[in-house]
Amino acid sequence: MGVHNVMEDVVRDTLHTYKGSLHLTCDCEQCLNDICALALNELPPRYISNSKFSPYVRVEHEANHQGATTILTVIAKSAAIVSGNPRCDTYAAKHQ
Amino acid sequence: MGVHNVMEDVVRDTLHTYKGSLHLTCDCEQCLNDICALALNELPPRYISNSKFSPYVRVEHEANHQGATTILTVIAKSAAIVSGNPRCDTYAAKHQ
Repeated sequence: MGVHNVMEDVVRDTLHTYKGSLHLTCDCEQCLNDICALALNELPPRYISNSKFSPYVRVEHEANHQGATTILTVIAKSAAIVSGNPRCDTYAAKHQ
Repeated sequence: MGVHNVMEDVVRDTLHTYKGSLHLTCDCEQCLNDICALALNELPPRYISNSKFSPYVRVEHEANHQGATTILTVIAKSAAIVSGNPRCDTYAAKHQ
């Protein structure tokens, strides 16, 4: 199915940009995916069926200061939840 | 990024199941994608970061009569919008 949620790209890039300042307990791929999934379930989906519209939808969120702040707040909240209870094998192995 | 919105699968399968009774002006791939994108922007995202959870999330929506009815209602509304204003090349070529 040729649809894509542009919010996935915005969340992934925002997480990678601010990863260093989120005090993550673990930053393995599973934990980053868990943070993205939690955050995306809290944010409005922005699906497009034609990738040529992606830049317009992205700029709507990234240029809009309030939108960008909301996204970062949701990501920080999701990061705190995952950091408080990491489910990945990497963390489990380190803390056996 | 290893996350997936299970609602995409539920919407795609529901649309294919009921496609015949939605009186679509055009059922080409672009129009079906447009309907899915519109519907997914109206429905709560259900992202997972581990595909083994997909069946549990799906059954939550499909077994729940109210949930399934809401999804079908949103798809029917999106189908009516796209049918009223098809943007695909297939329809344009037929109506030049």
